[in-house]
Amino acid sequence: MIAVLCGGVGGVKLVAGLAAVLPDPTRLSVIVNTADDWTWCGLHVSPDVDTVLYTLAGCASLERGWGIDGDTWNALEMLGRYGLPTWFRIGDRDLATHIARTAWLREGQRLTDVVQRLGRLLGVSARVLPMCDERVETIVRVPGGRLAFQEYFVARRAADPVVGVEFDGIHRARVTPEVTEAVAQAALVVVAPSNPLVSIGPILAVPGMREALARTRGVTLAVSPLVGGRALKGPTVEMLRGVGLSAEPAAVAGMYREFLDVFVLDTQDRAMADAVAATASPARRLAVAWTDTIMADDAGRRRLASDVLGIARARGADVPGPAA
Amino acid sequence: MIAVLCGGVGGVKLVAGLAAVLPDPTRLSVIVNTADDWTWCGLHVSPDVDTVLYTLAGCASLERGWGIDGDTWNALEMLGRYGLPTWFRIGDRDLATHIARTAWLREGQRLTDVVQRLGRLLGVSARVLPMCDERVETIVRVPGGRLAFQEYFVARRAADPVVGVEFDGIHRARVTPEVTEAVAQAALVVVAPSNPLVSIGPILAVPGMREALARTRGVTLAVSPLVGGRALKGPTVEMLRGVGLSAEPAAVAGMYREFLDVFVLDTQDRAMADAVAATASPARRLAVAWTDTIMADDAGRRRLASDVLGIARARGADVPGPAA
Repeated sequence: MIAVLCGGVGGVKLVAGLAAVLPDPTRLSVIVNTADDWTWCGLHVSPDVDTVLYTLAGCASLERGWGIDGDTWNALEMLGRYGLPTWFRIGDRDLATHIARTAWLREGQRLTDVVQRLGRLLGVSARVLPMCDERVETIVRVPGGRLAFQEYFVARRAADPVVGVEFDGIHRARVTPEVTEAVAQAALVVVAPSNPLVSIGPILAVPGMREALARTRGVTLAVSPLVGGRALKGPTVEMLRGVGLSAEPAAVAGMYREFLDVFVLDTQDRAMADAVAATASPARRLAVAWTDTIMADDAGRRRLASDVLGIARARGADVPGPAA
Repeated sequence: MIAVLCGGVGGVKLVAGLAAVLPDPTRLSVIVNTADDWTWCGLHVSPDVDTVLYTLAGCASLERGWGIDGDTWNALEMLGRYGLPTWFRIGDRDLATHIARTAWLREGQRLTDVVQRLGRLLGVSARVLPMCDERVETIVRVPGGRLAFQEYFVARRAADPVVGVEFDGIHRARVTPEVTEAVAQAALVVVAPSNPLVSIGPILAVPGMREALARTRGVTLAVSPLVGGRALKGPTVEMLRGVGLSAEPAAVAGMYREFLDVFVLDTQDRAMADAVAATASPARRLAVAWTDTIMADDAGRRRLASDVLGIARARGADVPGPAA
């Protein structure tokens, strides 16, 4: 069993690569950030979960990075005519996902069950698990105020300087039995190259999650979201600096230090290996590896996934080799 | 001021005709059945209100008789993939109306205000008023059970014999200030040729509505929904017989007797004029008129609207003549 912690557009590429190279993708669990979830026109929207579902179902829009390929915008256009905000672009097919999810949640189903149901109906083999069933909301603190994540990220195009990040409701959340089991049974836990503050950060902040990760007997491995001083995707660099951290792989490794066994740098950053290794917690040895972490296309996703499996095997993880 | 009581597809043709021939369509109020409203995938759907709004906005599908012209079905197709029922056909643009309505109702707005807001944004000049703000649900009693109206009408194609009709929740409803005012200020109140049991019936059953109609100083006029023993639209004949009434204009007139001044028959039914007149309440004289009531096209709608205005003027109603 392999478990991956990930956010949306950035980290999902590695998830797609793993699903492609694993001989049995049903043995892959994806634990997804839900602190970006929000209520849009009364509907429960789960941007990161849906990006994972659509990508694994093979219906994601590759150009856009979100939403469904070939979707139409007729409902959104009409909602604009009704004066409702249309900066959050929801296509007509995508809308059906939010309607179904909202209806099932209102029936009293847990978010975990709703996401599994959507995954099954979309033909996704991997187990996609929201980080928790409770509602958690990422709030981005900017000079002079607080912004809901989608407002910061989509409406204002991540242009505000960030001075802090908070997860409203996180203290009422708890790790689900499914997530606990996925981590406990994993031969390998991968932290995807997602934004450590707003994608991985909320997952780790769910009470019980860091403890579950520290307890797993599997190998824990993170892939750096920073390459040559830049983020693979999104405002990771600006956000790390905004909250007073350096925008370097070592800062990211430090955020995972109490549960991490291996940190994978991009080859061009291999000179930073010692700095990364030095972030290890005293009780734990941290190995550093490097490879080409840039996933430019499908082949790149599969290559990094194979490299990650190979690095984990070298550390003793009982994970399959790449499919023949 | 003119007020029209109507349901969906059948009666709206006369409403469209009146809006077309009146010099000032803002002086037209349309009081619409909402007992067909239902919750579809968590969204508040108002079939009759929307048919009136879309028709008056000029965006209704004329072939189908419901929904928006040129609409697409991508969300519905995806909802089908999620196993949700798709027999109630909601297009992508139409869906936006239900999302907006549901969101505004959840904010605590009255249905009356929500419908006015939709009408304004769709560019509708007439005042479209739901019959009440409370939730009322038409239940069709069939041998051995009770069916929600849309289940009877759409899912089962009105094929079950009907033995009764009930309006769940009607006793908690009350006539709105807007409806009261529209009826009180009307020089003419028209009962459209809609199904008297399930379209006009619920409107009249709203506590306070029959009293408001009996009190108006305007002329009250109904157009027969039956022509030559058949309904203009839908299962009116079968339903009237099912509840023990004859499927004749006199039976319909009898349902409106305590507030009606004029009943308009189709010319081919003029031999029934005496039978209709005999249904009058002792306290009230009922005049009977006839004209061609079949509205085959736009010209037919305008013609019947002009004829109705002419008949009302002949009875002393202060309503405009047809636009020059």
